[in-house]
Amino acid sequence: MIDRAWAARLDDEDPLAPFVERFCLPADEPPPIYFDGNSLGPQPLAAAAAVRAELDRWGSRLIRGWNERWLALVDAAADRVAQVVGADANAVVVGDSTTVCLHKAASAALQSCPQRPDVVTDRGNFPTDLYVLQAVADGAGGRLRMVAAAPGVDEVAAAVDDRVGLVALSHVDFRTGALLDLRAITDVTRRAGALSLWDLSHSAGVVPVGLDDAGVDLAVGCTYKYLNGGPGAPAYLYGRPGLADGLRTPIPGWFGHVDPFAMESTYRPAPGIDRFRAGTPPILSIAALLPGLALVAEAGVAAIRAKSVALTGLAISLADAWLAPLDVAVVTPRDPDRRGGHVALRCPNARVVSALLVEEHGVIGDAREPDILRLGLSPLHLRFVDVHDGMRRIADALARDDVSARTIDPGPAP
Amino acid sequence: MIDRAWAARLDDEDPLAPFVERFCLPADEPPPIYFDGNSLGPQPLAAAAAVRAELDRWGSRLIRGWNERWLALVDAAADRVAQVVGADANAVVVGDSTTVCLHKAASAALQSCPQRPDVVTDRGNFPTDLYVLQAVADGAGGRLRMVAAAPGVDEVAAAVDDRVGLVALSHVDFRTGALLDLRAITDVTRRAGALSLWDLSHSAGVVPVGLDDAGVDLAVGCTYKYLNGGPGAPAYLYGRPGLADGLRTPIPGWFGHVDPFAMESTYRPAPGIDRFRAGTPPILSIAALLPGLALVAEAGVAAIRAKSVALTGLAISLADAWLAPLDVAVVTPRDPDRRGGHVALRCPNARVVSALLVEEHGVIGDAREPDILRLGLSPLHLRFVDVHDGMRRIADALARDDVSARTIDPGPAP
Repeated sequence: MIDRAWAARLDDEDPLAPFVERFCLPADEPPPIYFDGNSLGPQPLAAAAAVRAELDRWGSRLIRGWNERWLALVDAAADRVAQVVGADANAVVVGDSTTVCLHKAASAALQSCPQRPDVVTDRGNFPTDLYVLQAVADGAGGRLRMVAAAPGVDEVAAAVDDRVGLVALSHVDFRTGALLDLRAITDVTRRAGALSLWDLSHSAGVVPVGLDDAGVDLAVGCTYKYLNGGPGAPAYLYGRPGLADGLRTPIPGWFGHVDPFAMESTYRPAPGIDRFRAGTPPILSIAALLPGLALVAEAGVAAIRAKSVALTGLAISLADAWLAPLDVAVVTPRDPDRRGGHVALRCPNARVVSALLVEEHGVIGDAREPDILRLGLSPLHLRFVDVHDGMRRIADALARDDVSARTIDPGPAP
Repeated sequence: MIDRAWAARLDDEDPLAPFVERFCLPADEPPPIYFDGNSLGPQPLAAAAAVRAELDRWGSRLIRGWNERWLALVDAAADRVAQVVGADANAVVVGDSTTVCLHKAASAALQSCPQRPDVVTDRGNFPTDLYVLQAVADGAGGRLRMVAAAPGVDEVAAAVDDRVGLVALSHVDFRTGALLDLRAITDVTRRAGALSLWDLSHSAGVVPVGLDDAGVDLAVGCTYKYLNGGPGAPAYLYGRPGLADGLRTPIPGWFGHVDPFAMESTYRPAPGIDRFRAGTPPILSIAALLPGLALVAEAGVAAIRAKSVALTGLAISLADAWLAPLDVAVVTPRDPDRRGGHVALRCPNARVVSALLVEEHGVIGDAREPDILRLGLSPLHLRFVDVHDGMRRIADALARDDVSARTIDPGPAP
């Protein structure tokens, strides 16, 4: 019998419980329950001071800030990301958006193997990934081949022939929360002679990634979800040590030159992944990002994952108990090894339900087409009682309202 | 006879004088003289509160911040940039770095005219422009053709034949401060059947641009120089109304989709320039940028330009009087119609001189290879007495030190 007291006991035993105090959360009474940390993570308490420090440096040190701090700050962010995704510190750069990083990584991959211009991805991949991969395949004279959403290793193996130069997938399906077998798919891709490119946007910081160990070739990801970097925080790009030196970025910028400050008229790429830097990095956004990365590093991804599995397990159990009778079904895999950090529910009129939950019931999740209600359960700021209370509010709302008949303007939902 | 009293009188008569109070400047005594606003503009007083407001919104509103404010903030930044560069508000997007914006604009331009894969630029263009243009020309199977630095309209006309699809130049030469004839070069480019792409990084906010009036096809620029947007502030991209609808961005991202929040699996470009948006925009950096744009708009580019011409004229006169005897010569064109907002001096051992001026004489300028000392005279925060005092300090330093014999590690210089 799962009741609130049981959830409270889980909180008592939770080694990560103190981390909730490290975030700035809404002061509303009653406080909203935030099930959208997989879309925009909450603000680390330390973020405001970190940004303030760089604003002060801009004010007082002006251009000198670059040598005195900002160049090192950009490297520090890359080092922290590397730690979180299990990568060599020299294998990661931070900057640009995930979309731009994907473009750079996928273009460079296909450019390196002109005999293999096709790309394999899955139908469930994030829209921007599909758009960029299609454009890159088109540009290489190849084809984007789609397998079913959240493929297993066999489906990927079957799709990769000697026309395929790149297998590009998301580690966690943004709709369903299904977790792909990164290691096995990377292995089969390599054995088939193609490069692997993983989008870690929905896994980094909540699922152990281990890029170096898995032998992944390329990876990208965003930092404003489980890494709590703030709205539009910069993305990152990983290139396997040894691989990056053989790649050409499609966007050779001054910041990726071997000697940026020499301002040479001919591009000479920096060694390794640093060549994928392009323009001047956004310092205020990087300052805001560092505290979020530090929190994840301090907690440790293994501990975060353990709590994440427990949180999603609790949400699934409560959904089975309270929502299944209301015609709302769990879509996310029930095997903990096959799911990431969020839980997806199939829910009639999900877009409207989601908006009503925010506006009238203080439960902030989101919806994805066609009928998915998404609950992002970010472990560093959520308590087990929050999951209990949030699921209770959802059940009460659905039981009370005939939401399938209601219409509101749900507005856009990033 | 130019003396300090004369400079002070110019300040008394300067309608823009009050704007210096709108910036946060170093509190050091004596205050440094900042001749590097063309590299990193100083911080508007309003910037910290603007960033703080969005940090607070992130903390209290979480994901709701996007609908409640941030999507509008991105549009507001684009509208402000459009105002500053004389463009229709719907012709500008803000986001990414200048390097990435250049890549998008140049790639799209060449993609639109496959029979004309060559690009014309000048040898004096900024390194990142040269690198990106070379890569884009290579990718199109074309050639990057270089004319002499800061070309006149005739040199450009002579270089454009029916293999040339794009003429890509910087409005102001980043080394010498030479101002190119944007309107005439745009005209001759159009008449020759090629597209024009202007990099406004060193002109926007200090020289009237008038993109719409001049019939420019594409433009990009950075916002952390005369627009005072902060270190690594986002760039912008302009596309002529009517042209953009026929262009394809090489980086089709979710944010440039006609309906981003529908999360469709097939890319359908947004109308006009909005298709050049790629990933999620950096909100904290955009918040910091808006006050800088507002100050330029409030002062008006015409008034800023008038003061800029006077400031650079004063610096040139003082250089002739005090520095020429010390073997330091003015490189920047003396005709006000042919120069931008900074003054370049040919100075032996310029890199070391620049570092010494910063460290020992409180004059913050910068150096560019091989022997250029750059003085950026940003009109909104500099007084005429600052120019007088800074030039005096430079003359005194050069007269006292045998700088041609000194060596220090000048460090990198962004």
